[in-house]
Amino acid sequence: MKLTILGCHSATPRWDAHPTAQVLEVKGHLFLIDCGEGTQVQLRRCKVKFARIKHIFISHLHGDHFFGLIGLISTFRLLGRDADLHVYGPKGIKEAIVLQLKLGKSWTNFSLFFHELDSKEPQLLFDDDKVSVTTIPLKHRIYTNGFLFREKPNERKLDINAVREANVSMTYYNKIKQGHDVLNEAGRLIKNEAVTFNPEPSKSYAFCSDTMYAPEIIPQIKNVTLLYHEATFLEEHAHLCELTMHSTAKQAASIASEASVKTLLLGHYSGRYGNYEFFRREAQTVFENVALAEDGKSFDI
Amino acid sequence: MKLTILGCHSATPRWDAHPTAQVLEVKGHLFLIDCGEGTQVQLRRCKVKFARIKHIFISHLHGDHFFGLIGLISTFRLLGRDADLHVYGPKGIKEAIVLQLKLGKSWTNFSLFFHELDSKEPQLLFDDDKVSVTTIPLKHRIYTNGFLFREKPNERKLDINAVREANVSMTYYNKIKQGHDVLNEAGRLIKNEAVTFNPEPSKSYAFCSDTMYAPEIIPQIKNVTLLYHEATFLEEHAHLCELTMHSTAKQAASIASEASVKTLLLGHYSGRYGNYEFFRREAQTVFENVALAEDGKSFDI
Repeated sequence: MKLTILGCHSATPRWDAHPTAQVLEVKGHLFLIDCGEGTQVQLRRCKVKFARIKHIFISHLHGDHFFGLIGLISTFRLLGRDADLHVYGPKGIKEAIVLQLKLGKSWTNFSLFFHELDSKEPQLLFDDDKVSVTTIPLKHRIYTNGFLFREKPNERKLDINAVREANVSMTYYNKIKQGHDVLNEAGRLIKNEAVTFNPEPSKSYAFCSDTMYAPEIIPQIKNVTLLYHEATFLEEHAHLCELTMHSTAKQAASIASEASVKTLLLGHYSGRYGNYEFFRREAQTVFENVALAEDGKSFDI
Repeated sequence: MKLTILGCHSATPRWDAHPTAQVLEVKGHLFLIDCGEGTQVQLRRCKVKFARIKHIFISHLHGDHFFGLIGLISTFRLLGRDADLHVYGPKGIKEAIVLQLKLGKSWTNFSLFFHELDSKEPQLLFDDDKVSVTTIPLKHRIYTNGFLFREKPNERKLDINAVREANVSMTYYNKIKQGHDVLNEAGRLIKNEAVTFNPEPSKSYAFCSDTMYAPEIIPQIKNVTLLYHEATFLEEHAHLCELTMHSTAKQAASIASEASVKTLLLGHYSGRYGNYEFFRREAQTVFENVALAEDGKSFDI
């Protein structure tokens, strides 16, 4: 898994501070998460191939998370895209996009599928043999979901010496990697553990923006490899969190700690703070392993 | 009059090529003309004070001319604007903006007036004692207007020596500047020309994008000081102009020549050309005084 931050600032775009958008690369998929104004330019700057994006997940319909979507879809059209595009987002997203395409008489040549969300329970949005994507219901001023990306368990690794010694036919190798016991050439049962190593642990990424402190998400994001949690404010402005339904860095760290995640990634900083290191320092009073999102930066998960 | 080009490229935004948006400063007004994605960032880059923008003119509802409008309006809201905002644009623009504000539950605190256009004849949109703005109906794939900005005639200049010599009371000076003849202290009629100089010639700016070659606009833009005319293609791609309803540099120059404008400003270049000097060279085969629009560049008119 590789996460690229296209933008990680709250509110209005500035030349040096882009609103929320991220690209997650996982097992051959390239998922776009949120799409603030200017995302298509950030994608170009980060050299992401537009054609590889087939699924776009929009957390909520505030401008700093979705005003770039119509421009990106229009650009796909101008580039002659023919691959299907799936957009997952709150109810209403289809009307907003389709109306603007209609006004410009600019229908796409490719199939555009909208998966509109209104459930307040976690919902499975995407599932194949490699990865699943589930909503994480968040608490914000309008209907908002985070997204949980989970790799499927990796195959067990063949212990090639052990398997040869056990005299197992090569035709069983795939079955063994999938975890099955098999019979060897002599008809004897070979236990899987005897001829395999444990697989690489599968990774998971939870994206949680925008939200106020919402401990009810903890069971769902328990033990994830990387948690991106918004930290719009520092504790000195905690009163603004209640008003705007955002979180402080310390609250994000508290969620990370309770959920025993491996790493916490902070972002969605309010423009009022000059130095984002303050966010890390505040979070580290509660949880050790904290990273700071930064426009254009990539993280290997 | 001072024109600042925020963006002058066609189609999709790139980090070094912004879609159409311009700011025209004229007699204390700051008019925004078109508003492609990323316009709010370009406004910041060019140090334009957001609060000074009270009138926005949108030529047509293709994305590269209006996808930045919703973000700009949202930012006005976040900045606590309270001044009225007037938006002039094709029918449908109100629905697109209002729907997106509604989905985000982000109503503006200031009054937002939409002036929706559907006439195919020139329409007076704005008129005060300093300046008027009129639509220029253009020919494009969807309903499109250019805009003609005209300063009102400037006041005549007082010839202070002549007016004293003629023994005219100072209470008449304003009347004289407005062009009236007056009576002097002795009751003798003083002809206006005898005590004034001609005023500064008033300036005019015609914005024409996007359009195919449309000679029917010539009477309306006759003798304007500056004509911005789109030049998406060079003559070698003239066949694409018919298909996409755009113009070549040579066609733009032919309009400028027929309309006897003072200066022609080219823009809306297709991304396929590396060197925009080709546009100037081609236009200059027909019309001498050609300038090239460039993102971030200002022109005194």
